[in-house]
Amino acid sequence: MRAGQLSDAQLSRLAPVLASLRLLVFDFDGVFTDNMVTVFEDGREAVRCWRGDGIGLRRLEAVGVQSLILSTETNPVVSERAAKLKIRCIQACGDKLVVMRSEVDSAGLDMSVVGYVGNDINDADCLKAVALPIVVADACDEVLGLARLRTRSPGGKGAVREVCDLVFNARRAGGDRGA
Amino acid sequence: MRAGQLSDAQLSRLAPVLASLRLLVFDFDGVFTDNMVTVFEDGREAVRCWRGDGIGLRRLEAVGVQSLILSTETNPVVSERAAKLKIRCIQACGDKLVVMRSEVDSAGLDMSVVGYVGNDINDADCLKAVALPIVVADACDEVLGLARLRTRSPGGKGAVREVCDLVFNARRAGGDRGA
Amino acid sequence: MRAGQLSDAQLSRLAPVLASLRLLVFDFDGVFTDNMVTVFEDGREAVRCWRGDGIGLRRLEAVGVQSLILSTETNPVVSERAAKLKIRCIQACGDKLVVMRSEVDSAGLDMSVVGYVGNDINDADCLKAVALPIVVADACDEVLGLARLRTRSPGGKGAVREVCDLVFNARRAGGDRGA
Amino acid sequence: MRAGQLSDAQLSRLAPVLASLRLLVFDFDGVFTDNMVTVFEDGREAVRCWRGDGIGLRRLEAVGVQSLILSTETNPVVSERAAKLKIRCIQACGDKLVVMRSEVDSAGLDMSVVGYVGNDINDADCLKAVALPIVVADACDEVLGLARLRTRSPGGKGAVREVCDLVFNARRAGGDRGA
Repeated sequence: MRAGQLSDAQLSRLAPVLASLRLLVFDFDGVFTDNMVTVFEDGREAVRCWRGDGIGLRRLEAVGVQSLILSTETNPVVSERAAKLKIRCIQACGDKLVVMRSEVDSAGLDMSVVGYVGNDINDADCLKAVALPIVVADACDEVLGLARLRTRSPGGKGAVREVCDLVFNARRAGGDRGA
Repeated sequence: MRAGQLSDAQLSRLAPVLASLRLLVFDFDGVFTDNMVTVFEDGREAVRCWRGDGIGLRRLEAVGVQSLILSTETNPVVSERAAKLKIRCIQACGDKLVVMRSEVDSAGLDMSVVGYVGNDINDADCLKAVALPIVVADACDEVLGLARLRTRSPGGKGAVREVCDLVFNARRAGGDRGA
Repeated sequence: MRAGQLSDAQLSRLAPVLASLRLLVFDFDGVFTDNMVTVFEDGREAVRCWRGDGIGLRRLEAVGVQSLILSTETNPVVSERAAKLKIRCIQACGDKLVVMRSEVDSAGLDMSVVGYVGNDINDADCLKAVALPIVVADACDEVLGLARLRTRSPGGKGAVREVCDLVFNARRAGGDRGA
Repeated sequence: MRAGQLSDAQLSRLAPVLASLRLLVFDFDGVFTDNMVTVFEDGREAVRCWRGDGIGLRRLEAVGVQSLILSTETNPVVSERAAKLKIRCIQACGDKLVVMRSEVDSAGLDMSVVGYVGNDINDADCLKAVALPIVVADACDEVLGLARLRTRSPGGKGAVREVCDLVFNARRAGGDRGA
């Protein structure tokens, strides 16, 4: 367990907020990926993602939690991965917080039922705005202090699945509180 | 040695069941691969596999053990890898257990001589059905308890080869029991 | 912390030189990348870089520090990555030190305000010439002794970002000394 | 230091044989690569190699040591990588030992001045035949016992460079013995 990661006891104290979530918002690079990018000779790019994330996202749906990817840049790999995972994505978010607020409003929700998963300083404003700010195990130092939950898995290697499973299990156990 | 992995003493107690196997069924992602997928800008995918697996599968054949890949999804990378390894694969298995039972029947075998190697919850039913349920070192927590054997190597980095070598060595040592 | 890496106390003693830098010169392979190269069947190549480097380089600009990539070989992946990061790159540097001296002169600077980040023996002359010689965590043994600073992050996995952040924070804290 | 790896004292006892080498023969997969293969949807493959190997091979040449890649299979990535590194390669070696013997004879050498670097059981015969059998840090268990030297770096992540540097340094220190 890395510094800043939660013990099982601390995780169980987070169960109520995990169970109350209705929307999980994810950064893409460093969360769905290992924060690396493969660069080809013609400038095209590729990223590496985790096969297990799909199962996690389907479980979220099954317990009534929506999910959304927000990305600062525009990159075809994000839309392709989002399409494969059947999850909405919004790219070219100059200000992620503005976009997230608008999405939360449109869904008729408020920030008390939103979680955000990030890894770098361009996630800071969103992390500060939500009920459950989450960072991946290998997030950059500057955002560690903003998180209530730090995953045990690194980005791109199980972090998304881990968050989905935590929410899924909390909602199943405490569905009467969260629904 | 990770929690749940077997000591040499425990491995040697598994020798009889290892030696009796006639069919090894493998999940693909997370077993033949490191459970990551490379996503390109046009949506095509690639996976990373272990060069040493081919030697292991040829050894299995040499001691009379068949092998088979079952995959829930359909993906050209699975058929390409299976073709290169000269091993049968069946994709688009909505229900892996049904497909596995049918394969076992067709081969004139029963579950007492079948091993299954998986890494995630969609492998759970198959793991429960076979004589020797095996998970890779980095399998997800929910299936660890279903396995009698957890490899020391992670998926895509020697796990398949390790299983093949264990069966190969057990059958060579105790061929009279297993054949 | 690896042998040769600096403690926080040692880092703080480096603050004045970090704050005085006006130009950071980077080797490419092993610094912007993990020092591996993907080789395709047709001989084309690809490399893996760190998504977080862009944020670091923008921060450098914001505190008035220029950056430059020097590469011994010529490879399209270097120019593509440099273009994406909006940072100058000079390739085919038979003698990196000659090219670096010429660049420093053209910019009206001298070596007392230059840092160099490298990982292998073809970086040795440049490391010896600058005010702040830096190597990545996984630099080869022969150049470790030439560095005043060894990053905690390996090449391609945060090393560039870490250097940028160190310079950024030192210049912000001690801007009156460095500007 | 892993089990089976040599201490500095043991390495220095190997100095005479390192200094006497005139030919280094390398397996490709798992030695020049991390033993993984990237599989694309159309069946094409790619491998990942270490950028630092080129510097090591040029150093070998500088002290009069030839190098050669022997590969059991035929794969375009091997010829492409060998061409880039300017090192001979022979593929489709059904029996590597026969090919190696023929190469050693043609060069007017004998096995007492040959080193072989491998990682798997199809390297066993060659490892047994040469004066200095070498395995990479992550070689498979079955060949560890055949090696007089096990590198500290894994295959594809510095192992080739490490061997080259050991030979280079030993020959420079003891050139009068080796030449």
